[in-house]
Amino acid sequence: MQTDEQAIRELVATWFSASRAGDTEQVLGLMTDDVVFLVPGKPPMRGKAAFAASQAAMERFDMDASSKIQEIKVFGDWAFMWSDLSVVMTPKNGGAAVKRAGPTLSILRKESGKWLMARDANMLTT
Amino acid sequence: MQTDEQAIRELVATWFSASRAGDTEQVLGLMTDDVVFLVPGKPPMRGKAAFAASQAAMERFDMDASSKIQEIKVFGDWAFMWSDLSVVMTPKNGGAAVKRAGPTLSILRKESGKWLMARDANMLTT
Repeated sequence: MQTDEQAIRELVATWFSASRAGDTEQVLGLMTDDVVFLVPGKPPMRGKAAFAASQAAMERFDMDASSKIQEIKVFGDWAFMWSDLSVVMTPKNGGAAVKRAGPTLSILRKESGKWLMARDANMLTT
Repeated sequence: MQTDEQAIRELVATWFSASRAGDTEQVLGLMTDDVVFLVPGKPPMRGKAAFAASQAAMERFDMDASSKIQEIKVFGDWAFMWSDLSVVMTPKNGGAAVKRAGPTLSILRKESGKWLMARDANMLTT
């Protein structure tokens, strides 16, 4: 049987593979309805619809991401995780790739037996 | 009796008042021994000693901070909180003040009945 920690690691891996494939529908299925994304220099982005809208700007890029998970702690149906994340965005029209890296701190929630992203702080810089 | 949420709000208020007073000892008493601070563009800062060392550079400034707590969720002896934080640093030698603002996402832990900062993601920008 899969442990909660294994299931959370699988959520992260699925998030990256779906993002790489440009499959926004699948990524939306990996977050809670009330998800909040926090990044430097922008207002908080709340909810799936806001995330979906933000992905339109990503269509011009090939995206590849990898992370080194530093810690996962589970409390029943909630968990937190922090990691070192690295993202490479390559314009599909052939421009120069941009690499961004930095830490993330995430809150996860288990709904109907499935772990989902609930709150995410993303501190990537170029 | 004080609720956990009230105690966490008080922790934040005490953190700010102690920081304003330059009382690093008191601030150190508000965090877990294994605290981790995550910010953009720097490696994770782990543990009280690293925090204490970072405060030396702050002695040249008067610091004032305020935050608007957006959410607190408690799970037994753990909790998370996110907020909009604003920090003004004014050089004691009379230079221009610098204002930084942005979201924070924090993990808190209750040890011996006292809430402490355990993990903190700080996304302030100028």
